[in-house]
Amino acid sequence: MSWYKGTGNESGIVLSTRVRLARNSADFPFPVRLGIKDKEQVCLAVKEAIADYVDDTLTYTDMSALTPTEAVSLAEKHLISPEFAYERDGRALLLSENEDVSIMLCEEDHVRIQVIFPGLALSEAYEKADKIDNVLEKKLNYAYKEPIGYLTQCPTNLGTGMRASVLMHLPALSRKGAMRRLSATVAKLGLTLRGSFNEGGDGAGNIYQLSNQVTLGISEAAALQNLSSIAMQIVTQEKQARALLVKDEDFIDKIYRSWGILRSAYKLTSQELMSLISFVSVGACEGIIDVPCDRLTAAAIELQPASLSVAENKKLTQNQRDILRAQKVKELLE
Amino acid sequence: MSWYKGTGNESGIVLSTRVRLARNSADFPFPVRLGIKDKEQVCLAVKEAIADYVDDTLTYTDMSALTPTEAVSLAEKHLISPEFAYERDGRALLLSENEDVSIMLCEEDHVRIQVIFPGLALSEAYEKADKIDNVLEKKLNYAYKEPIGYLTQCPTNLGTGMRASVLMHLPALSRKGAMRRLSATVAKLGLTLRGSFNEGGDGAGNIYQLSNQVTLGISEAAALQNLSSIAMQIVTQEKQARALLVKDEDFIDKIYRSWGILRSAYKLTSQELMSLISFVSVGACEGIIDVPCDRLTAAAIELQPASLSVAENKKLTQNQRDILRAQKVKELLE
Repeated sequence: MSWYKGTGNESGIVLSTRVRLARNSADFPFPVRLGIKDKEQVCLAVKEAIADYVDDTLTYTDMSALTPTEAVSLAEKHLISPEFAYERDGRALLLSENEDVSIMLCEEDHVRIQVIFPGLALSEAYEKADKIDNVLEKKLNYAYKEPIGYLTQCPTNLGTGMRASVLMHLPALSRKGAMRRLSATVAKLGLTLRGSFNEGGDGAGNIYQLSNQVTLGISEAAALQNLSSIAMQIVTQEKQARALLVKDEDFIDKIYRSWGILRSAYKLTSQELMSLISFVSVGACEGIIDVPCDRLTAAAIELQPASLSVAENKKLTQNQRDILRAQKVKELLE
Repeated sequence: MSWYKGTGNESGIVLSTRVRLARNSADFPFPVRLGIKDKEQVCLAVKEAIADYVDDTLTYTDMSALTPTEAVSLAEKHLISPEFAYERDGRALLLSENEDVSIMLCEEDHVRIQVIFPGLALSEAYEKADKIDNVLEKKLNYAYKEPIGYLTQCPTNLGTGMRASVLMHLPALSRKGAMRRLSATVAKLGLTLRGSFNEGGDGAGNIYQLSNQVTLGISEAAALQNLSSIAMQIVTQEKQARALLVKDEDFIDKIYRSWGILRSAYKLTSQELMSLISFVSVGACEGIIDVPCDRLTAAAIELQPASLSVAENKKLTQNQRDILRAQKVKELLE
C-alpha cells in the first residue's frame, strides 16, 4: 500500500521511512555529461537489468510522456524528486504498483533506487532496496572503487550512496520552539533535520525530515542504526511534549476548531489543509478526535495541487482547486 | 414566547420590536429626588394599580432581592436597562411569564412600560403597551400637561414618552461599509441607528438598533409609521446586499467555517459567539445552512455571561463560561 495510505511503527509520529541508493554504471559518463539520446540508452540498459527482479511488478514510464502536472503529482507523493519532475527529457521511472519502490533513471545519477514504507521501518526499507540493488549489480557494471565505495555525481553521496530518511510529524516540539535546538543537536551527530513540504524548510504542517548525512567511511548498517536510534529519541521527546500539550485547553480548542473547519470550509488552500490536519492528527493520536491518522495523512498528500488536478483529470484554477479540496477532504474524512 | 425564542415578520433581519412608554405619577417627585423608602411607596402604588390588568400574569420582583448576576442577565435579554440592573435599591420589576411585558418601576421615571415582540411588530407592540398604559392611567394620577403631553424626567422623552425600536441584524450592509452613511441618513429623519451589544456602538455581531428620537409634537401613530417605513426600507436594502453577498465565495466560505467552529470549538467567548452566529444566521436565512434562525438568536442571547451563570446557578470564571458556552451552543443547535 502507498506509504501515505498505510500505517506502521510509531506512525502517529513517523509518517514514512525512505531509503535511497545512488548508483552509476561505469560504462557511461554521469547523466550531467550525457545528451538526451545517451540518457535514453542508460534508461533502457537499466530497464533490461531490472527484468530479473520479480518481487514486484515495476511499471516503466518515460518521464517525457508525462504532463508537468502528472510529474509534479509524483513529486508531491515523494515518489520522485522535484527536480526529476521539472526536467523530464531522457529520464524514466520504474514504479511498483503500491508505490513502495520507485527507481529514477538518469536523475543526478544513472540509478536512484528508492523504497518508501509507512511508519518507522529502516531495516525493512533498506533490505528491499538492497535486494533490488543486488539484482541490478549483476547486470550493470557499477562504478565502484575501493576504498571509497560507490561513485556518485555529487561527492556528498560517495561511499554507500545511501540516503535514509524518516518523515516525522512534530507539532508538539515545534510548538514549544524546540526545532532549532534539535536541528543543531542532530547535525553534530551526522544527521539533518529540516522542514518538509515547503521551500523555507520551516516545517509546514509541522512535518520534518530526519536523514543521514554521512555516506563515506561508514557502513550502511551503522548509518541506519544511528538514524534509527536518533529518530526514536525524537519520537520519545515528541510524545512527552504531546502529553503536556493535550492538557493545554487552548491547544484542545485549536484541535476541535481545526476539526470543525476541516469538515465545513467551502475553500481550503493546500497550506491551510496541512496546518489543520497537523492539529487534528494530534487529536486523533491522543484519542480526542475519532478519525484514523492514516486517512488524515492520505488527505494531506492526495489533495496537494497537482495530485488533485491529476485525480480530476483536468486543469483547475487555484480557486477551483481550493473549493474541490474542501469537498474532497469532507468525503475522505467521513 | 420570549422574543429571542420566537419568530415574527421579517425575523431573518428584524430580531425584535420594542415599545417603551415612560410615565410618572403627579403624586410623587421624579425618582431621582426620592429616597429608597419613597421609591418603595411608588413601586407599591404601581403594583396595586396594575392588579386590574388581567391579560397577562405579571410577577412582581423587588430588584434588591436579585443578585447582580441575575439582574445583569435580565439586561442581557433586553428586559430591563443596564442602569436598572446596576442600581437596584428601591426599584421593582413587573415581568410577564413569556417576557413580552416588562415594567420597570423607579427607573429614570416612575413607570417604564415595555413590550417586546419577535420580528417587526410595531403596531402590535404599541397596542399592548397602550392597553397596560390605560389600566395604569385609571389608578395613577399621571403627570400630564397640555400642550406638552406626558412629563418625564429627561426632556428627550417629553410628549408621548414613547420610545419604539427595532433590533436589526445587518451583516450585509455592515460588510459593504454602509452603516455610517445609513446612520447619518436616518438621523435626518428623526431616528437613531446604532450598534447594539457593545459599548462602542459599532454593532458586535452586526446587530443594530433603530429607534425614534422625537417624542414632542408628534403623535404615537405618526412616530410608529415613520419608524416602520424606514425599518422596511433598511430591510429591503439588507436583502439586496445579502443577495449579492451570497454570490461571494469568500463569504460563503466564512459562513461554512463559522458553522463548523460553532459546532466544534472547545471554548467560545461571548463576543466570538455573536460574530459566528451573525455569519451562520445569514447562511440560515439564505438556505445555505440548515438551522432555524430563532435557535441562533436564542443561543446568542441565552449564552451571554450573566445569563449562562444564572442558568447554571453558580458562579463561573470567564474560562469556565467559555468552555460551557461552547458545550451549550452545540446542544442548542443540534
